Amino acid sequence: MRTDQIRQGRLSGERSGDLEHFLASMDADRWIAEVDLLVDMAHLLGLSRQGIIEEAPARALMAALLDLHDHGLPKEAFDERFEDIHAGKEAYLIDRVGEDVGGRLHMGRSRNDEVATCVRMRLKEEIIALVRSLVDLRQTLLSVAAAHTKTVMPGFTHLQHAQPTTLAHYLLAYEQAFSRDTARLREAYARVDVSPLGSAAFASTGFPLDRNYTAALLGFSRPAQNSMDAVAARDFVIEVLAAAAACMTTVSRLCEELVLWSTAFVGFVQLDDAYCSSSSIMPQKKNPDVAEIMRAKAGSVAGELAAAVTIVKGLPMSYNRDLQEATPHLWRGVEAVRQSIPLLSGMIGSAAFNTGRMAAEAGRGFSTATELADVLVRDYGLPFRTAHRIVGRAVRHGSLDLATLEGAAREAAGLSVVGLGVTQERIDAALDPRHAVAVRSIVGGPAPAAVAVQLSEQNELLRRDATWAEETDAALNQALEHLILESRRLVA
Amino acid sequence: MRTDQIRQGRLSGERSGDLEHFLASMDADRWIAEVDLLVDMAHLLGLSRQGIIEEAPARALMAALLDLHDHGLPKEAFDERFEDIHAGKEAYLIDRVGEDVGGRLHMGRSRNDEVATCVRMRLKEEIIALVRSLVDLRQTLLSVAAAHTKTVMPGFTHLQHAQPTTLAHYLLAYEQAFSRDTARLREAYARVDVSPLGSAAFASTGFPLDRNYTAALLGFSRPAQNSMDAVAARDFVIEVLAAAAACMTTVSRLCEELVLWSTAFVGFVQLDDAYCSSSSIMPQKKNPDVAEIMRAKAGSVAGELAAAVTIVKGLPMSYNRDLQEATPHLWRGVEAVRQSIPLLSGMIGSAAFNTGRMAAEAGRGFSTATELADVLVRDYGLPFRTAHRIVGRAVRHGSLDLATLEGAAREAAGLSVVGLGVTQERIDAALDPRHAVAVRSIVGGPAPAAVAVQLSEQNELLRRDATWAEETDAALNQALEHLILESRRLVA
Amino acid sequence: MRTDQIRQGRLSGERSGDLEHFLASMDADRWIAEVDLLVDMAHLLGLSRQGIIEEAPARALMAALLDLHDHGLPKEAFDERFEDIHAGKEAYLIDRVGEDVGGRLHMGRSRNDEVATCVRMRLKEEIIALVRSLVDLRQTLLSVAAAHTKTVMPGFTHLQHAQPTTLAHYLLAYEQAFSRDTARLREAYARVDVSPLGSAAFASTGFPLDRNYTAALLGFSRPAQNSMDAVAARDFVIEVLAAAAACMTTVSRLCEELVLWSTAFVGFVQLDDAYCSSSSIMPQKKNPDVAEIMRAKAGSVAGELAAAVTIVKGLPMSYNRDLQEATPHLWRGVEAVRQSIPLLSGMIGSAAFNTGRMAAEAGRGFSTATELADVLVRDYGLPFRTAHRIVGRAVRHGSLDLATLEGAAREAAGLSVVGLGVTQERIDAALDPRHAVAVRSIVGGPAPAAVAVQLSEQNELLRRDATWAEETDAALNQALEHLILESRRLVA
Amino acid sequence: MRTDQIRQGRLSGERSGDLEHFLASMDADRWIAEVDLLVDMAHLLGLSRQGIIEEAPARALMAALLDLHDHGLPKEAFDERFEDIHAGKEAYLIDRVGEDVGGRLHMGRSRNDEVATCVRMRLKEEIIALVRSLVDLRQTLLSVAAAHTKTVMPGFTHLQHAQPTTLAHYLLAYEQAFSRDTARLREAYARVDVSPLGSAAFASTGFPLDRNYTAALLGFSRPAQNSMDAVAARDFVIEVLAAAAACMTTVSRLCEELVLWSTAFVGFVQLDDAYCSSSSIMPQKKNPDVAEIMRAKAGSVAGELAAAVTIVKGLPMSYNRDLQEATPHLWRGVEAVRQSIPLLSGMIGSAAFNTGRMAAEAGRGFSTATELADVLVRDYGLPFRTAHRIVGRAVRHGSLDLATLEGAAREAAGLSVVGLGVTQERIDAALDPRHAVAVRSIVGGPAPAAVAVQLSEQNELLRRDATWAEETDAALNQALEHLILESRRLVA
Repeated sequence: MRTDQIRQGRLSGERSGDLEHFLASMDADRWIAEVDLLVDMAHLLGLSRQGIIEEAPARALMAALLDLHDHGLPKEAFDERFEDIHAGKEAYLIDRVGEDVGGRLHMGRSRNDEVATCVRMRLKEEIIALVRSLVDLRQTLLSVAAAHTKTVMPGFTHLQHAQPTTLAHYLLAYEQAFSRDTARLREAYARVDVSPLGSAAFASTGFPLDRNYTAALLGFSRPAQNSMDAVAARDFVIEVLAAAAACMTTVSRLCEELVLWSTAFVGFVQLDDAYCSSSSIMPQKKNPDVAEIMRAKAGSVAGELAAAVTIVKGLPMSYNRDLQEATPHLWRGVEAVRQSIPLLSGMIGSAAFNTGRMAAEAGRGFSTATELADVLVRDYGLPFRTAHRIVGRAVRHGSLDLATLEGAAREAAGLSVVGLGVTQERIDAALDPRHAVAVRSIVGGPAPAAVAVQLSEQNELLRRDATWAEETDAALNQALEHLILESRRLVA
Repeated sequence: MRTDQIRQGRLSGERSGDLEHFLASMDADRWIAEVDLLVDMAHLLGLSRQGIIEEAPARALMAALLDLHDHGLPKEAFDERFEDIHAGKEAYLIDRVGEDVGGRLHMGRSRNDEVATCVRMRLKEEIIALVRSLVDLRQTLLSVAAAHTKTVMPGFTHLQHAQPTTLAHYLLAYEQAFSRDTARLREAYARVDVSPLGSAAFASTGFPLDRNYTAALLGFSRPAQNSMDAVAARDFVIEVLAAAAACMTTVSRLCEELVLWSTAFVGFVQLDDAYCSSSSIMPQKKNPDVAEIMRAKAGSVAGELAAAVTIVKGLPMSYNRDLQEATPHLWRGVEAVRQSIPLLSGMIGSAAFNTGRMAAEAGRGFSTATELADVLVRDYGLPFRTAHRIVGRAVRHGSLDLATLEGAAREAAGLSVVGLGVTQERIDAALDPRHAVAVRSIVGGPAPAAVAVQLSEQNELLRRDATWAEETDAALNQALEHLILESRRLVA
Repeated sequence: MRTDQIRQGRLSGERSGDLEHFLASMDADRWIAEVDLLVDMAHLLGLSRQGIIEEAPARALMAALLDLHDHGLPKEAFDERFEDIHAGKEAYLIDRVGEDVGGRLHMGRSRNDEVATCVRMRLKEEIIALVRSLVDLRQTLLSVAAAHTKTVMPGFTHLQHAQPTTLAHYLLAYEQAFSRDTARLREAYARVDVSPLGSAAFASTGFPLDRNYTAALLGFSRPAQNSMDAVAARDFVIEVLAAAAACMTTVSRLCEELVLWSTAFVGFVQLDDAYCSSSSIMPQKKNPDVAEIMRAKAGSVAGELAAAVTIVKGLPMSYNRDLQEATPHLWRGVEAVRQSIPLLSGMIGSAAFNTGRMAAEAGRGFSTATELADVLVRDYGLPFRTAHRIVGRAVRHGSLDLATLEGAAREAAGLSVVGLGVTQERIDAALDPRHAVAVRSIVGGPAPAAVAVQLSEQNELLRRDATWAEETDAALNQALEHLILESRRLVA
Repeated sequence: MRTDQIRQGRLSGERSGDLEHFLASMDADRWIAEVDLLVDMAHLLGLSRQGIIEEAPARALMAALLDLHDHGLPKEAFDERFEDIHAGKEAYLIDRVGEDVGGRLHMGRSRNDEVATCVRMRLKEEIIALVRSLVDLRQTLLSVAAAHTKTVMPGFTHLQHAQPTTLAHYLLAYEQAFSRDTARLREAYARVDVSPLGSAAFASTGFPLDRNYTAALLGFSRPAQNSMDAVAARDFVIEVLAAAAACMTTVSRLCEELVLWSTAFVGFVQLDDAYCSSSSIMPQKKNPDVAEIMRAKAGSVAGELAAAVTIVKGLPMSYNRDLQEATPHLWRGVEAVRQSIPLLSGMIGSAAFNTGRMAAEAGRGFSTATELADVLVRDYGLPFRTAHRIVGRAVRHGSLDLATLEGAAREAAGLSVVGLGVTQERIDAALDPRHAVAVRSIVGGPAPAAVAVQLSEQNELLRRDATWAEETDAALNQALEHLILESRRLVA
């Protein structure tokens, strides 16, 4: 197989393997090699339709491309002396069908628009997959929540027992965040979904390409509107990595909960063995390794994002080779999410929640003290800040029984709660965690009725997101099937 | 003025000034102090309307709040011993109207929902301002572009002269990116625009608050749907900072151009003196300092984003004090963009473009060699890769005249271009930069007609973004005016 | 007071307040304003000693500088129309002593070397302060550890009960990390400790400055060796921020422990009330806010580091205004550490450790199972992996009594531990946490004797670090006192 | 080959391939697989020497280990169902020599100390390699500088022509920075160079291991002093990545220069074709791709650093699985530097500097105006600020000839330079770039004599760094050869 077709006119001399490896993007190009063939086919169909290439070479080229599509790219196309898969593939084609034919594919095209088109196509697939996995995760969360609308547990602030809530309410907080992650990805998709093809090096081309036609063939909504922007912009990389980082940050929070909840101290959850590892030295250990790695992957994606921003910062127009270095960060960031979300879904879905432990802890640590203060306000007319101070002082004295409360009231507010009519029974009722949950029934609250509204609204939103993913995926597949069909028709 | 109302029940002892300073968020709270009063008013109107507070204390409280609104918060409310403005303000109110009245404002409310509401309100204002400044910047870019659709200049890849383009085409590439930044901010706005108020500590409250009512009073589209998510989520901070970082990355690229273009080497632009500084030692210097600082601010915003992600990562539900530390990063990041965009707009609008230098450089560095290769393909039937190799070899030999081209063709492809009929005249025509621009007339290209389409489409998009900003701002102002009106009505 | 002295020759026109604010570094310059006067004095002494300035203007200038040193810089020197304190101060001087005198201070000097000198001087002070606070923190950790060499507690991996250890061993792990942080700061100091003064804009100057003399006057070990590097390099900023970020990462881990340990679940520690906050709504709350904010500050410093790297990346030589934007990140990062470390020291030193809870948890969760497996290996000859599997299986069955162990041995390894001679007494001895700690006496282990070695070695290392800080600080102060003395001598 | 030895006691059930892949570190483990065998041998020699393992199983195990060392690890040891190479290797050994022998290697050892030991060993090799490549790069810079002490060129601030300097002075600025990078790596090495082996899970072990012995066998300077710190600390990862990021930031600056200098505008350098690429569409292009990718890699390493900090932040003691996710970032970061530095050295060493262009630009853009102002001060007694203003005004008027200067002096300072005796000859002399360089002869300046001092000092420093690298490498190799020898002796 020939050497690099692109260098040989302008540049002289050989390069060391180290240099070739440094310049090459072959590792990352495995992500786009397959779609690159589709881009070739669309470009060739466009050249042919516009009469830029004659029928014979077009047919010969398409036959070779279809062969590669059907049987895969040969290993030598990935040789690092070609710098990238685009050059490797072109060399292979020329080797196979001769330069007089193979040398005609690159009319009106540069690697700059080719690679940008490939990355966007591949990324669209990834975004759809991410949305799907988020839909699954949210479905899991909604299902588990629906089963636990009456599972009372403590809620925390500052990791201190704070107020009682329910497991449903708790999980729905996470589902809300994941629904926003889904929305961000959908919106990013719309910006990714434009075709750079035909932008060539950055100034488009004098060949009369029909960019609308090739964009449609490749399943894009439209061609990118400015050819320089089309090859040089990478804000879509930053945007998708930012959406990934935001999503993984939420993932890391939920994983932190799972790690905490599966400690011997807390004991709220027993993770399925499949999501745990043991120790090479400590035979008793069952460690929540999957949750830990997932938590760490939030840091990895944050790093990929930081890298992409730093790489792109300060680059003048239009294409600079620096942009090549940004792409692997995109793929690694996206992959971290794609791997994590389904496992998180499985981990939550298979977890055994210890509702007994949750109930036992729900009232601990004076976690219903707020309700007691509220009762002093609602039923006995105290200003909230006064009631807050009295109850706080009683907690400092270690109890919320009537005697302690009375002492605290005299000490901290110079008044008598007994005198106001407070009784031990009234206190006991206020301190019952189930009561505290039941009365928190306003919009967004943990009371079962309020949670039912949240479940209903979020299920509806989920349904819409699921539909979007299905329809978008179907439309994309249909476009690509049509592309293959047209390509086969050309050689038929 | 009294000491901290919140600590005195539960906690004992004094704290050092260092500790108070460490815990305090007073610096950042200056951002939200004003809206915090609006939140108080809305909450109080809600308490009153629901009958949770009686008329007399409600009127007394509202009178005090309106007084603060009309005359500003006193300095002592910002004293760091209060940790935050919420506590400082409450202490002030109690000091002024007595605990029996002042101690009733915090019913059914926690600082957790209060601060989240304030941050979202303030951020909405900031986003609208950012969108407006982006609208202005894009207007400037579109105007300058419209004036330069025939200003031929070199385009670059790898900072090497690549192909001729026009200044209009060049600037429109940036305008495209800024239009996406605008879209991201608008979409982020929709997610910021939900009211946490009524979520209290995280579990909402047993008081029968009407969260829809207070959300509407404060100009929110709706209340946040889950009270735990409402106080604990900060993905909106990450999202807005990511949008800011993406935007500033594009800004940094345009500033890099301005720095390069204003060098003695390039000389494409002369920045207005206002945007330049001189040197304390070198009397001749005129430095593009504003562009440099703006370029650097892309790094600052990237840092604010990295900080926010790292802070939020791995935090369990619900509120943790760590979140306080995230907010200053938000404000600093947003402020960097808000300051930069108008100055960038002014810098571009006042810049003198040296179109003579641009024209002179347009054809330099063999930047029309692609067109020559294309001509060999289009008019003389060579495969593109062959033509590319021949022209490349001729460049290596230092010239694109007929003799050199003929030699290169024999050497690199074993053929004669003279034999094919190529003439010096044909070469000269192909190498004319104006010709190269004129033939690049497909969608997205630099030819004036193609640029006219881009101008038209982007002006229409700009109009829609401008309308959004005006309408959203007007609706927000109307809501807040209504809030003040209702508040005054309460005390009337 | 006059307008900017530096612009008026070369540049025309007025600038808006927004522009002035954007360009100004006045906020950050408050960090260096005081040392800037020292730099002026040293430069002036140098000019005078080399005969570059005559006696009369030198005395007049020095008198003005000493006045500013003694009474502080006037507010107007910080006016943002001067861009920076250097220009503001020069304008003030010229206003005061006339241009014929005041206009002579800047001979052979640029703001480029002036600001680099100021930043390095100020940073040296900060590093010494950081080292001192780390010395204090380590002293606290060593003291608390020394008091708890026999306080048995559970150690964790994956936050699961793993093996018993002691509080001393636990805290010494952190002390080790802080001793490395100290070392990194000391090493960074050596690289910060070179004087840029005399490098002027970047090419030094034709005036015969004695850079060794001014370096010594300012307490630097030597002048920077290359004048371009001296004004353009900011790797020292990155290095110090990286050391700060590494340190804060360790801080964040210790704070995470304190947050966990002070939960109702764990209860290992009771933080002093001074380091806690309560809730505005939940009267019972005692939250570890200081630990949380400190944990978050690790994220803030990480962000400052990311910003500095991104800002400096890709800047050509020599000075670019971007560098101004890097400095505030340095100060913010350093300040976060300087504020945190003493509070962390106080928080640890005042914490009440609940040794009863620690002891009770030490043996929980089968945390001595490793020792049992080791006994099966050591005393009964089983291969470790076999013993590990048997004990692991017994844990899966829920107990480590002899009967369960026997069943597990038969099931998982086809052998009888009873047959090997294992007794319940032997098992009980192996499972005693105090025993597990006592036998872990090799280098680095938790047994009291091994811990005593660590205490001794680390106390010695601490002593050396403390001495370094004292001596370095004293030498610096001595140099600066000498500088003031020489300055007064000039005017005497 | 058997399944995972570690899970089978405690945990039940099968795991999906996705899960296994998610948990597995096999990709990153290829970095440490080879040293892991050395760690096994050292541990085994230690077990044997202390009599913890009997002779027969020790010999059998060592024979198997040596076989793996001599012939490489089998592919199946890297199967992802083993999570990591440590488990994969143990399974292989047990499969080969039986559990009764193979199950004894892990006595007193955990994967926690094993992996930490492997990472530190491997990292030491990498640091030595980095120091060596930096030594080479600095040698190149010093050599090129030595050849160009009289090559006058313009220096820049804000990318504007500022003052003349020499290529030697310019390159030495970079060499200074790289010498600091070298120092940071050497200092980091000292902290990496401690052996965790024997720390087991974190609490060391009850087996009487001799940690000093195994540390010495593996070439470590000493064992880590606290076993919990030994397995849980990753500040060494952050430190090395920070050193790498600082180094690459400097690399990115030098690459930015090369990109700029090889533009058609500047033309200061012609890079060797080997370091350039052409375009797939533009036949004339010769692009500085290697410099661009290298510039971008600064962003990649910044991202790896950000990831590592974010991952480690907030983790409690001791080992958490999150740490596994940090290691690949370390390797990627280190690899980016290791690949870049030698290529940068080659690129500089093979570059053709266009000294004619440099000379032609040296005096352009009024770059000697500072010297003219200095002459007005030195020879004609003007205050510097006055001279600065006069020359600045003349530049604004477009010329530095006597007539313009005179006009500027009258206009901006109300005085006559002609009256002072200034002549056109004196002006011309002052404006000669060679003169401006020649008079800048103070410490650190560009005059040849000053540069000679810098060359001499830096060559000496370089020699010391080179010696360190050689000696450290030799000592390490000697230790490992001795380890192999001892291992062979055991089975002999």
